[in-house]
Amino acid sequence: MTYNYRMIIAYDGSKYHGWQIQPNGQTIQEILQKNLAIILRKEVLVIGSGRTDAGVHALGQVANFLLDKSVDVFRLRGSLNGLLPPDIRVKEIIESPLVFHAQYSAIRKTYHYHLHFDRVQDPFQRLYSFHVKEKINIDLLKNALRLFLGTHDFTAFANENHLGSAATNAVRTMFRLDLIEQNGGVRLEFEADGFLYRMVRNITGTLLEIAAGKKSIEDVPKCFEKKDRRLTGQAAPALGLFLVKVDYPIDHLKF
Amino acid sequence: MTYNYRMIIAYDGSKYHGWQIQPNGQTIQEILQKNLAIILRKEVLVIGSGRTDAGVHALGQVANFLLDKSVDVFRLRGSLNGLLPPDIRVKEIIESPLVFHAQYSAIRKTYHYHLHFDRVQDPFQRLYSFHVKEKINIDLLKNALRLFLGTHDFTAFANENHLGSAATNAVRTMFRLDLIEQNGGVRLEFEADGFLYRMVRNITGTLLEIAAGKKSIEDVPKCFEKKDRRLTGQAAPALGLFLVKVDYPIDHLKF
Repeated sequence: MTYNYRMIIAYDGSKYHGWQIQPNGQTIQEILQKNLAIILRKEVLVIGSGRTDAGVHALGQVANFLLDKSVDVFRLRGSLNGLLPPDIRVKEIIESPLVFHAQYSAIRKTYHYHLHFDRVQDPFQRLYSFHVKEKINIDLLKNALRLFLGTHDFTAFANENHLGSAATNAVRTMFRLDLIEQNGGVRLEFEADGFLYRMVRNITGTLLEIAAGKKSIEDVPKCFEKKDRRLTGQAAPALGLFLVKVDYPIDHLKF
Repeated sequence: MTYNYRMIIAYDGSKYHGWQIQPNGQTIQEILQKNLAIILRKEVLVIGSGRTDAGVHALGQVANFLLDKSVDVFRLRGSLNGLLPPDIRVKEIIESPLVFHAQYSAIRKTYHYHLHFDRVQDPFQRLYSFHVKEKINIDLLKNALRLFLGTHDFTAFANENHLGSAATNAVRTMFRLDLIEQNGGVRLEFEADGFLYRMVRNITGTLLEIAAGKKSIEDVPKCFEKKDRRLTGQAAPALGLFLVKVDYPIDHLKF
């Protein structure tokens, strides 16, 4: 028998080299696999919903692994959190249908990007929010973000990944992009059927350049049309970005 | 001429050995004095409103220093924040009357203590909130904290400081002690005319033992009466504690 276990994971990405295993630097995937292997006494492959970059945080990353035996998910969660460093926590482990695949089953993701504008940086936000020093026009920001809603070819807002390859199909649908005011700044909430590599950080960077008066709001449709990464703004830094939620079709979650 | 500069300071205390200079380990006072000396080209004594222990945080610590010259406070703040580590930020520097003394002029302080009760710890709260694993009865917590309001001899809730001396007068007035529910836990807000050494952490520890059913609510008046530290609960850890605000009489602040 093969069993499929889905995990919901929160992590403070500050100290890590992102999600995916790589030759240099500790990654979340690696640490999860190492500690699961200790508890389960066998190697497992932990499949994430997608990579997060170095320094990016997660409130609700989703991953799954296959196992040839059944386990008590509450005990496993307890043992795993006992071994994991306190900046990585497994919030839930749920037995799921075999069809569930953390990456391929995903139908929607939610990312938040935190910005703060106070003249003096709040030391408690230093690792979790981008401190913008330029004068930002919030109304411009609100107007500009509407342009990203709906279905577009986001090629201009995507970077090539570390293998030098870009997604073959860059058409994505942004269901929601909201601006929520919070202490000393704002939170941008992105919800789409998928995100290209660096897409949230590139959109945020472009929005900030518009809100600071360095780019015009008319540049956004041009970027969509020309599909040229050089036209868009500098990527906002990783530390303000949180993967909040990944959605799946109900029949991939429940038996 | 002597000038008196008041500073409002926020810091993440996680990495520091508290406010006050000591032989082992870096302290906030020491780092402020060192960097002020670099900018001002002379040694200054930075007087804090009071010590905070190792690991305790501050949103609004207040300090002052005397100087024999006048300085541009906005430039000084900018230079100082440029040299300080990002977990210590000077939020404001204000020229103040000579009568102002950060410790002796203080008439009221506000501390917050953060608790969270989720079964799995939120990794983003791990350095800023005490993760209570026992089952807590919030109604008991609310009822018990009312007993600390008003004027009492708080001897039983004070530790001796590192010099082995206790305050000669342990009578303090608690103006306010509120419980505010927040994500996954609560925040206790303490406002008093002064706090004895470890008083907030000892009260919080006692409240938690009552709310977990280990102590009775009737033990609180007994503690006040017997003035015996051994009767009160174990101190709650430093990491949940924030010095939020220090109040002063208006004529000590304004010319």
